[in-house]
Amino acid sequence: MHKRSLLILALFLCFGPSWAQKKAKHPKNIILMVGDGMGVAQIYAGMIGNYGHLNLERMPVVGFHKNQASNAFVTDSAAGATAFACGVKTYNGAIGVDANKQPVPTILEIAEEKGLATGMVATCSITHATPASFISHQPSRALDENIALDFLNTDIDVFIGGGRKFFANRSDGLNLVDSLKNRNYQIANSISEVQQVKSGKLAAFLADEQQARFSAGRGDELVKSTEVALNLLHTNKKGMFLMIEGSQIDWGGHGNNTQYIVEEMIDFDHAIGKVLDFAAKDGNTLVIITADHETGGFTINGGNSEKGVVEGKFTTGSHTGVMIPVFAYGPGAEKFAGIYENNEIFHKMMSAFRFKQ
Amino acid sequence: MHKRSLLILALFLCFGPSWAQKKAKHPKNIILMVGDGMGVAQIYAGMIGNYGHLNLERMPVVGFHKNQASNAFVTDSAAGATAFACGVKTYNGAIGVDANKQPVPTILEIAEEKGLATGMVATCSITHATPASFISHQPSRALDENIALDFLNTDIDVFIGGGRKFFANRSDGLNLVDSLKNRNYQIANSISEVQQVKSGKLAAFLADEQQARFSAGRGDELVKSTEVALNLLHTNKKGMFLMIEGSQIDWGGHGNNTQYIVEEMIDFDHAIGKVLDFAAKDGNTLVIITADHETGGFTINGGNSEKGVVEGKFTTGSHTGVMIPVFAYGPGAEKFAGIYENNEIFHKMMSAFRFKQ
Repeated sequence: MHKRSLLILALFLCFGPSWAQKKAKHPKNIILMVGDGMGVAQIYAGMIGNYGHLNLERMPVVGFHKNQASNAFVTDSAAGATAFACGVKTYNGAIGVDANKQPVPTILEIAEEKGLATGMVATCSITHATPASFISHQPSRALDENIALDFLNTDIDVFIGGGRKFFANRSDGLNLVDSLKNRNYQIANSISEVQQVKSGKLAAFLADEQQARFSAGRGDELVKSTEVALNLLHTNKKGMFLMIEGSQIDWGGHGNNTQYIVEEMIDFDHAIGKVLDFAAKDGNTLVIITADHETGGFTINGGNSEKGVVEGKFTTGSHTGVMIPVFAYGPGAEKFAGIYENNEIFHKMMSAFRFKQ
Repeated sequence: MHKRSLLILALFLCFGPSWAQKKAKHPKNIILMVGDGMGVAQIYAGMIGNYGHLNLERMPVVGFHKNQASNAFVTDSAAGATAFACGVKTYNGAIGVDANKQPVPTILEIAEEKGLATGMVATCSITHATPASFISHQPSRALDENIALDFLNTDIDVFIGGGRKFFANRSDGLNLVDSLKNRNYQIANSISEVQQVKSGKLAAFLADEQQARFSAGRGDELVKSTEVALNLLHTNKKGMFLMIEGSQIDWGGHGNNTQYIVEEMIDFDHAIGKVLDFAAKDGNTLVIITADHETGGFTINGGNSEKGVVEGKFTTGSHTGVMIPVFAYGPGAEKFAGIYENNEIFHKMMSAFRFKQ
């Protein structure tokens, strides 16, 4: 072999693998999964209630975020989700706006502008605080009809949740469902209609306002919706940004209802399983699982993982201010280790996507 | 350059760095820091009480352990520490013995046998459940005098804590302080005496039984003891195993006393700072920070990090069963990411030390 060839071989062997490794660390897809109100105890309650294990345990990287709002020690879901979506600390109630009520571009909007596929799935009204903060810019989370209007400002590909009435039965008389149809959205009003959609854009309303609790009739709609969203979005060659919310873990906390928390946690974990199966197969997907805040001051005072029994106690019907675990999987996951502020999650996702900031 | 030289250069450049990297991942020293009763809320209370930050935030790797005992959902400190020390799940009250009451070698004993320096520092009696489980083998944590006797079975280099009476004023009339002197231990009975010891072996008794609470007179003895232990142990060329316990975070939880938790958490964090400064300078030290269990069902319902104010609430005067965070720093730290059983911490430390299992 010629000297020069040997040298080139040497250089390739030395720097090629590390270059390839760096290349591989740029995910094509980011899937952010938010378990609303899901603190450490909620996760562990789901684990014990599910006989000792969750799909969430497949996440190799762990961190914590600090979630204080700009105007309050204890955050609400609006300020919490806006921190993830926009990278700013803001006041409680703020939807995609900063502490001065100025709109801030969301990661979903930025991804959409760059040609990625985008989507949201939730088990609450799609206009509720968490999903709203990724696509809307309003001074208050209470403005559901304004938030619904904002869905037409971003060409999101798929959204599945409740909240039909904020689109179809509005005080201003507009019919946003017709507007969505004009923009080539397929409209689904049940999970079976959702499952029939195999390509194109989808707006799905699974409830007039909020979906039922898992055991009160909603069943496995979150898992099925997650599967459809993944199928519709993954065909985009530029990648996707998908936000999936397990919305009602929070409501179990507000109700100081351990069983409600456990069943919603397990349901959310089934969606986590689907997402991780997709990510493992795809190999180029960063999955982040976290919560906006803890709800209920929930503690686990006894239990039995063989019987799936959890003895929970609560200190409040509201949120608490404790730091919140973050779990990450896939290329770029290492960015999410350690302890940091909640709005850093936006910047870490932007950096993983290699979007300019 | 000759072809062969070039090839050797190529091989060295390719495999040398990765070989060196693997080499570097084997820590010489392991320092395990246990904040007794330190769940996520206790850590965050310390952070808020310390105006928003702790040295603990310097830890890059985060994980969780599941701490159920072999005979109970909610563990005590004995079963919890025995899981770390010996790698086995055992019953509540067990000190260095398995579920069948059989002695199991501890990582401190194994390190000592292999010629490493070993030490323990605690802010409770050195015969109390957590330190005891690293050096003693007794069917019950209540057997303080037997536990004290076991300290003479292992040639531990340094131990600093309370519990003088279990060595000096025993029901069997033995004077173990004399026995320690005969084995070349320097005996210290105050923190100033501890600080005078510059080399050799040290047995320090800072209280007849339990030390006072930080604000009730103990002051910064933990930080000072940690500094002395590091100075005495780090000269061993084979390395060291050091266990440091912030013992009284747990007692703040048992007392449902937020301020007690906050001051003990901050005190423990000062020791963490000393350890991390040492580890950063040394470059070959693996630091692991975790807890045995959470105490108090403690939640953070309000606060103000600018004022250092924490509003805590509690659901019990006992321990709870929630999973416990693990933080790691230094070579081998990556082993401690993810979610695993508490006894895996023993196996991960053994693997980091490259001790056969």
